[in-house]
Amino acid sequence: MPTIDAAELRPVPIEAGVGGGYDCAVSASEPNPWHRVSRRSAYENPWIELFHDEVIRPDGQPGIYGVVHFRHRAIGVVPLDEGSDSVLLVGQYRYTLDRYSWEIPEGGGGFDESPEAAARRELAEETGYAGGTWRELCRSDISNSVTDEVAILFVATDLVAGTPNPEGTERIDTRWVPFDEAMAMIGRGEITDAIAIIALQAVALERALAKETAGG
Amino acid sequence: MPTIDAAELRPVPIEAGVGGGYDCAVSASEPNPWHRVSRRSAYENPWIELFHDEVIRPDGQPGIYGVVHFRHRAIGVVPLDEGSDSVLLVGQYRYTLDRYSWEIPEGGGGFDESPEAAARRELAEETGYAGGTWRELCRSDISNSVTDEVAILFVATDLVAGTPNPEGTERIDTRWVPFDEAMAMIGRGEITDAIAIIALQAVALERALAKETAGG
Repeated sequence: MPTIDAAELRPVPIEAGVGGGYDCAVSASEPNPWHRVSRRSAYENPWIELFHDEVIRPDGQPGIYGVVHFRHRAIGVVPLDEGSDSVLLVGQYRYTLDRYSWEIPEGGGGFDESPEAAARRELAEETGYAGGTWRELCRSDISNSVTDEVAILFVATDLVAGTPNPEGTERIDTRWVPFDEAMAMIGRGEITDAIAIIALQAVALERALAKETAGG
Repeated sequence: MPTIDAAELRPVPIEAGVGGGYDCAVSASEPNPWHRVSRRSAYENPWIELFHDEVIRPDGQPGIYGVVHFRHRAIGVVPLDEGSDSVLLVGQYRYTLDRYSWEIPEGGGGFDESPEAAARRELAEETGYAGGTWRELCRSDISNSVTDEVAILFVATDLVAGTPNPEGTERIDTRWVPFDEAMAMIGRGEITDAIAIIALQAVALERALAKETAGG
């Protein structure tokens, strides 16, 4: 049975971590310590497919892994009105959690379409807002212990109001909230959706940096 | 067939959103617009159970929903060394994504144990670090379109080094990185894990607020 080399696991001393120029790309080439023995599709629907894999684990022992493959990318957008410094939130009942959730507009995009096009479509469907100026904020692996779901997040300004056209699976409420109030909602645990938190935090950090730069 | 009341979907005018005292708790009492007709367990392993539900959707039409139930809470911690202003990152190959990922120390906690106790155990197992002062940062629903996974996130200081003892499913690399460099890694797309991004951004926002307060 292969054993783990203790040297790989020894923490780097704190001192060595300060000011060092870490090249994390080196680790990207590390070999996969998992070995897949077999894979079967255990479940599928139009949104996900679940694979049950038999594997050899990193410690050399046999094991299993259930992987939830997402058939779409998640997309999300922070719709900002700069004049009033407000953000457009959407509220909906989340079936998975059995409770109501306030979030940014989100949806699914095909891997064969541009993430921005998908985000523009979802925003228009859920809220009616269209047009404007869009910028990608960041990308994130949402739940990488079990799923391969990826989210691509945007911020949009100068949007134009229109008529929403939600899907049959959606009953959407919308609300413009002052940006600082949206951040306070995260602080109070009233916004808990990961995609919404990541995107709103990213915008808030950009603002803090801009303020700091202007102030210095 | 029930129809959606257009009034529910009409966006609140931007003007009304500014300075208004929104009481989002009102919406928490909105009735569930989904109706579950049947539920069967389609797959299970020690970490997840997948339910295939037949439902009546919010628009009154029949549909299905595949819900991935997580048997554990996700926990994560930002381990900070205040003297060197560094954060301890862990690197591991993520089987779901088929690539290497730098993250904060994360793991799973039982619903019958305290989240902080679970986070302390996972940190010690993965990195050897223990003790110190802990504070909860925030909670998040990680992927609420398909799963009920919840993450509870902490920041820890004054940790004491020890010997790691990872599980057989883990081959962990550790690295102390200057905090600003960890944030730059998010900006460069080198840290993409949602739990890591939320926790690191939360700490960065606390720091920005403290600096602003001190500067004003």
